[in-house]
Amino acid sequence: MTFAPKTPIAEILTALDTGQITAAALLDTALERAKDASGEGARVFLSLMEDSARAEAVASDGLRKAGVPPRPLEGLPISVKDLFDVKGAVTTAGSKVLASEPPAEADAPVIARLRAAGAVLVGRTNMTEFAYSGLGINPHYGTPANAWDRASKRIPGGSSSGAAVSVTDGMATVGLGTDTGGSVRIPSGLCGLAGFKPTQSRVPIDGAVPLSTSLDSIGPLAPTMDCCVRVHQVLAGEPRRAIPALPVKGLRLAVPKEFVLDDLDEPTAAAFQAALSRISEAGATIVDLALPELLELPVVNAKGGFTAPESYALHERHILRDPDAFDPRVISRMRRASEQSAADYYSLVNARADIQARVAAKTSAFDAVLMPTTPRIAPPIEELAADDAVYGAVNMAMLRNCSVGNFLDRCAATIPVQDEGAAPVGLMIMGETLADDRILAISLGLETLFT
Amino acid sequence: MTFAPKTPIAEILTALDTGQITAAALLDTALERAKDASGEGARVFLSLMEDSARAEAVASDGLRKAGVPPRPLEGLPISVKDLFDVKGAVTTAGSKVLASEPPAEADAPVIARLRAAGAVLVGRTNMTEFAYSGLGINPHYGTPANAWDRASKRIPGGSSSGAAVSVTDGMATVGLGTDTGGSVRIPSGLCGLAGFKPTQSRVPIDGAVPLSTSLDSIGPLAPTMDCCVRVHQVLAGEPRRAIPALPVKGLRLAVPKEFVLDDLDEPTAAAFQAALSRISEAGATIVDLALPELLELPVVNAKGGFTAPESYALHERHILRDPDAFDPRVISRMRRASEQSAADYYSLVNARADIQARVAAKTSAFDAVLMPTTPRIAPPIEELAADDAVYGAVNMAMLRNCSVGNFLDRCAATIPVQDEGAAPVGLMIMGETLADDRILAISLGLETLFT
Repeated sequence: MTFAPKTPIAEILTALDTGQITAAALLDTALERAKDASGEGARVFLSLMEDSARAEAVASDGLRKAGVPPRPLEGLPISVKDLFDVKGAVTTAGSKVLASEPPAEADAPVIARLRAAGAVLVGRTNMTEFAYSGLGINPHYGTPANAWDRASKRIPGGSSSGAAVSVTDGMATVGLGTDTGGSVRIPSGLCGLAGFKPTQSRVPIDGAVPLSTSLDSIGPLAPTMDCCVRVHQVLAGEPRRAIPALPVKGLRLAVPKEFVLDDLDEPTAAAFQAALSRISEAGATIVDLALPELLELPVVNAKGGFTAPESYALHERHILRDPDAFDPRVISRMRRASEQSAADYYSLVNARADIQARVAAKTSAFDAVLMPTTPRIAPPIEELAADDAVYGAVNMAMLRNCSVGNFLDRCAATIPVQDEGAAPVGLMIMGETLADDRILAISLGLETLFT
Repeated sequence: MTFAPKTPIAEILTALDTGQITAAALLDTALERAKDASGEGARVFLSLMEDSARAEAVASDGLRKAGVPPRPLEGLPISVKDLFDVKGAVTTAGSKVLASEPPAEADAPVIARLRAAGAVLVGRTNMTEFAYSGLGINPHYGTPANAWDRASKRIPGGSSSGAAVSVTDGMATVGLGTDTGGSVRIPSGLCGLAGFKPTQSRVPIDGAVPLSTSLDSIGPLAPTMDCCVRVHQVLAGEPRRAIPALPVKGLRLAVPKEFVLDDLDEPTAAAFQAALSRISEAGATIVDLALPELLELPVVNAKGGFTAPESYALHERHILRDPDAFDPRVISRMRRASEQSAADYYSLVNARADIQARVAAKTSAFDAVLMPTTPRIAPPIEELAADDAVYGAVNMAMLRNCSVGNFLDRCAATIPVQDEGAAPVGLMIMGETLADDRILAISLGLETLFT
């Protein structure tokens, strides 16, 4: 068996269990692709974890051979975003300024859980500096190109840029990302992957360089929703158990009328409408839901939201000491913290709770809320890298829909719904706060319509 | 039976149950005292609720007479601080600026719970404007004098000033107060009453004009700890059940070495030391606990803490529109919000969680933490009213120890420990977060040594 890029991990686990392949061979293939000078590896990984990964793969193969019951991710090569603490390594979060910090004293809880579940950690993936953008462009380490229409070198989406391309290009089976305003779901959507952002409290965010502790959450980018389920269960410290796909027939799904359907580009609008038609034909009821509360989000977040002041406070020491070492497009947004007073921040906290309650009163009657993951397909890196205004406008657009889920502290999955070979378009499936297992079951069901 | 001031409510309930007195007669006595021109009633109550109280008393007497099982507070005259919503009345929170607001559309949950438990709500008590001071001085409505050494017209403590004097002067059996930095415990301590501030989440704060929603909590000022237990159970929506006093023998109690024992005046130091001796003689172990974390509190709160920005945000509309109608000593502290940025506020939230965890690691091994409720006895009103600097310094001193409990989100009781006839001195008994029932049981036990 060969390990084709985007092979679902259930298939790989079966191949491992039946001796058709070994963890060591999987790792070899992943590393070979990562090191291929003609590929994107140099921009996907900020560092490879070759020695420890080798030891993990060998240990895993030994355990399997000895008949020890395989753990949920036994022997699978997995990439981790550069902002997770890995014991003994410096956590740089895609920045230059953290390079002189001391090495991490312990694995982040999610890293420890992946290792305990038998994962083989291939390397640390590239990202937007400090995760503060949805585009995935990194001026320090380069930007990995989207696998779709690679000749045009389109953005992978971000901030978990390397995570997405590590999966599309077969350098890992799954990528571990973080999502503060869409950083798991945007690159998943733009790269044609499945992705899942849990309700924040389901997965511990300790040991990950924070962008905004009010909004940060941790989740997988993967070939399929089943892969997401398996990895999410490990991240959440839950026992492995199958989540059956919920039948599409009879689902009651809401599509917000406001905000999330504005300014869609043509491929996105067409793919989203086609997806809704297919879901409807499969027997789900789709309701156009008036949700004008969403129009309040840009208003209450006008002074930088949670992210500007929280990231400023978290990184102030470096901002003051070494501002020129930052990505200017990141530090400029952190500095927007100065626009916001303590009273403004407190009012924002209260406004969030109020909006959460009002939106939940409307959405909780539905099984899920649907929207396009992003309003447009991935543009070429060059267009954005060259122009601050374009970068800013496209970034705001890419974050718009996903950030609804972070602001409301919802769980949300994205699945690819474009036609074969077309520009990737994600369908976002957002659930209520803490309804994670339910939204995973619904997403597994919807996914069956698009594969 | 006469209703003597500070009669424990258990005694009154027995007298009611045995027909020795009626709720109507209790109310008559309370109102008579409140209206006595030679007393403090004019400064204790901002308004009496005579009509509804009369109806409640009559209804209660009718229920008792008909043999309906008495509710936990059946027929007891109780006063409520002016900041609680009472349906149909304007909630002014001791201010002038709220006078033109619309009347409350519903009772606050705690008001509704008191009524549902059979309480007779006598009237709305005076307070520091917006509850923003521990002294109890109100330039708009006057300041009720402490019952101790009344000739000297000493402060009652605040912000629940009228609540305390309504109880010491027999205008109510219990007063309902709020505590953001000590506003239940300071007047209880300075007036020789028992008081209880629960862990914030135990009693809903909705329908009370907020000072700082991060710190506000609601509790009773009462003659004894048993009275506090009975009223707290109603406020918390819990069924009535007896909490047995925990024996003092064998208790392990901590007294912080730092911060809380600084600059005690002589009567307070003497009464506190005598109290510790008595507790020790009764068989408790008292440990001097190094708790330098408390020294961080003034540092992290240096830019106005939670209260300045939160109260500013909550009252901004009035601050901008009608600043001259505020108590200048209140609005000046609300305006300190401008010193604090959103990033500062966020850092304060994080610092609080960090300090909470570090202090809990040290205190959780003990049954309770003891300290003087305030570092000094009540000074004459005139000394403070005349001088901003003195007002400010004494206010900071009075709030110092109590505010530890709010910052840490602990539960804490205060019981009087002075000698008969001496200046009131409170002993504060602080417990862990959510250990409310345990701290009530311990306080009931300690109280037996001082009665």
